[in-house]
Amino acid sequence: MPSLSRSPRFFEQEHPMAFLRPLNRQRAQVLMEQDELDGIVLIQPESIVYGTGARPGSASGWRRAGAVFVIVPADAREPLTAIVGDFYAEEFRTASGIDDIVTFPVWVDLIDISKVQKGSLRERLSVARPPDQVHQRPANFDRRQTFTLLAEVLARRGLATARLGTEHAFLPVADQACFQEACPDVDWSDASGLVSRLRMIKTAEEIKRLRLAAISAEAGTTAAIAHIRPGCTADELFSVFRAASAQRAAELGYNGPVLANGAITIGPGATGKGRPAERGDVIRLDLGCVVEGYTSDCARTAVLGRPSADQQAIYGALRNAFEAGLEQLRPGVSLQKVHTTAMKTMHAQGFDMYCRGHFGHGLGASVFVEEWPFIAADETRPIEAGMVLAYELPWYIRGLGAFMLEDQFIVGAQSVDACWTLSRDLAICD
Amino acid sequence: MPSLSRSPRFFEQEHPMAFLRPLNRQRAQVLMEQDELDGIVLIQPESIVYGTGARPGSASGWRRAGAVFVIVPADAREPLTAIVGDFYAEEFRTASGIDDIVTFPVWVDLIDISKVQKGSLRERLSVARPPDQVHQRPANFDRRQTFTLLAEVLARRGLATARLGTEHAFLPVADQACFQEACPDVDWSDASGLVSRLRMIKTAEEIKRLRLAAISAEAGTTAAIAHIRPGCTADELFSVFRAASAQRAAELGYNGPVLANGAITIGPGATGKGRPAERGDVIRLDLGCVVEGYTSDCARTAVLGRPSADQQAIYGALRNAFEAGLEQLRPGVSLQKVHTTAMKTMHAQGFDMYCRGHFGHGLGASVFVEEWPFIAADETRPIEAGMVLAYELPWYIRGLGAFMLEDQFIVGAQSVDACWTLSRDLAICD
Repeated sequence: MPSLSRSPRFFEQEHPMAFLRPLNRQRAQVLMEQDELDGIVLIQPESIVYGTGARPGSASGWRRAGAVFVIVPADAREPLTAIVGDFYAEEFRTASGIDDIVTFPVWVDLIDISKVQKGSLRERLSVARPPDQVHQRPANFDRRQTFTLLAEVLARRGLATARLGTEHAFLPVADQACFQEACPDVDWSDASGLVSRLRMIKTAEEIKRLRLAAISAEAGTTAAIAHIRPGCTADELFSVFRAASAQRAAELGYNGPVLANGAITIGPGATGKGRPAERGDVIRLDLGCVVEGYTSDCARTAVLGRPSADQQAIYGALRNAFEAGLEQLRPGVSLQKVHTTAMKTMHAQGFDMYCRGHFGHGLGASVFVEEWPFIAADETRPIEAGMVLAYELPWYIRGLGAFMLEDQFIVGAQSVDACWTLSRDLAICD
Repeated sequence: MPSLSRSPRFFEQEHPMAFLRPLNRQRAQVLMEQDELDGIVLIQPESIVYGTGARPGSASGWRRAGAVFVIVPADAREPLTAIVGDFYAEEFRTASGIDDIVTFPVWVDLIDISKVQKGSLRERLSVARPPDQVHQRPANFDRRQTFTLLAEVLARRGLATARLGTEHAFLPVADQACFQEACPDVDWSDASGLVSRLRMIKTAEEIKRLRLAAISAEAGTTAAIAHIRPGCTADELFSVFRAASAQRAAELGYNGPVLANGAITIGPGATGKGRPAERGDVIRLDLGCVVEGYTSDCARTAVLGRPSADQQAIYGALRNAFEAGLEQLRPGVSLQKVHTTAMKTMHAQGFDMYCRGHFGHGLGASVFVEEWPFIAADETRPIEAGMVLAYELPWYIRGLGAFMLEDQFIVGAQSVDACWTLSRDLAICD
């Protein structure tokens, strides 16, 4: 059930892999036409990275509206416009390939004397910025100014009276009035669902990151399981996981930061980190790596010593239900069918008290590792090529242990590929 | 200019240090009386940790409203009420010491057979949850249900028609209507500013974390500077920083995760990571550690080889301005006075083209490392005991390098203590 998938200062860090913009303009056009929108205005930091391949700059760190805008017209032939802080503009242009970039002053100043050859230091600085040039900067950024720029851009792009969507699942109420005030003739609506539907289908580049994250985490999990011994703690196993996954990523030629993510639970308490391992303890390893914001999510269960009959019964039932649900996990089948099948299989094995809201979720680079859509009882949406899904069957039984089996699947046109090859058997550590 | 200060799954991880609730109820009462509020309802994950000392649970990972509520009555004698997902409730109760906890089902199920001694596994599970007990769970959480609980709690606490503040700088527009619909007679307003004012003054426990983060980062920065040599990259120096700061934290007895945070810029490009170091390059090391969400933020500048006269002139001017501003950085003086003094000192040294929006910011455990208030031209607020401030003078000069001097200060009743003892001189690496 992993969580936040952002590294500190993620939106400031350069991407070590060349990053192609995941946004597919053709799909965006289709979805906007369905929703009767003339365009969308992206404002959430994660969506900016998604829509452009570029970092939105640290002004977006406060997670407020107005720090960055990307205007995506419905017509896929129309170019994108970005409104970003001046300090980030050059890098933004290079990373995104967007030509139409409008800037505003942020608190950080950059002065360029590289093209001023002659004179003393002070003279060169004065040429780069003449004394009559006003240079004041806001404490962070001026929201009225950036929304005025948005209005100007929308007017210039012929969108001043358009039907535009923005991200209401992100937009703070404190900033909402700015949209109406700056652009009173725009028909604003919520495009959060549309953005989620766009993000649901991954590009080859996104899948590459999700696969790399998963393969690294598999090596880490294997190492952590091998390290299990009496007295070991969840923190200790997590350190082993972290080191081994980073090493694996490096072996695979990735030289950027690999963030270790996840939770390890030891013993019958079944929640939190649990106790130092004792013989007979069940150990849940629910682990992932984050590579450039993209988070993997898989889990295995181990027992220190010989598993009890009860432990075997629970894990065996989960394993059977996992495999039954997995047979349904294929393009064209609804996500709810996977949920129903796995649930029914648990109940049919005499565990009719078993209960769980979702058996997995999309994976990507959202604000949380669990990305829409969910493998849930009410999710009628069909499984589609390009989805990357975490599929999981956990059971937290206080008095026996935390059990979990989870794999990450890449959905192709005709195929469903697991990212891990590690055995799904209960790992017996003796 | 550091950035996001959250580790992945931070809100799921247990705090390795015993965490006392930073929220000061007496101060909260004073501020609420000033703002004519009968109470506040905390909803932002960071505010929940701040208000209770407990993790809000992974349901808060999507950063939507309704995943968790903490009701803080203005009257400091009145207890807190928390509304949290059932899976997190027990840990929340233990960590927060809050008695009045209302729960709702999240997608994760926990069944407790630890008190059921007799019978087979299936019998014990059936006793723990009888077959006639309905057990269904939502795909994540049911917002209508959690807002209904909020209305019930407010009614029970005598706040059904009260003047209540909540966090509009966080609250997504998509969730705003829930407040009005569930609690139509409450007079809702924005308490984001009030929460910021509360958080501005740190407790001894918060200062302990900020100091530990800073001391660890100082060791890391010292090691990174010692590692500077021709050909070294920003990534390489950052790895040295990461390892040395984690080691220092461990030596200081801290066994939790230490997250490395920050940016290193090498060479005349003055932005991004820059090039592998060459003789004569300026190197900016703007580095911090994150300890349980609390982020330090300090910076030093180094030169590989002998600094040029121009490099010395810029750094010398920044250093003078830093010291001049620092003389103003004391309790009772306005933050704008520090900004004005440092700016004037730069201009008086012949650098009248120098410009910068803020010379620092609060530090804490907010969503971004730069926390309100800012050391800015328009910030009339006085410096107060309990503030922890990053005070910084950077200058990004393309063609010469990125220069920066930043220290972290703890403001006492009569004192201002720097967290670092590392020399503020330009570091010369030869």
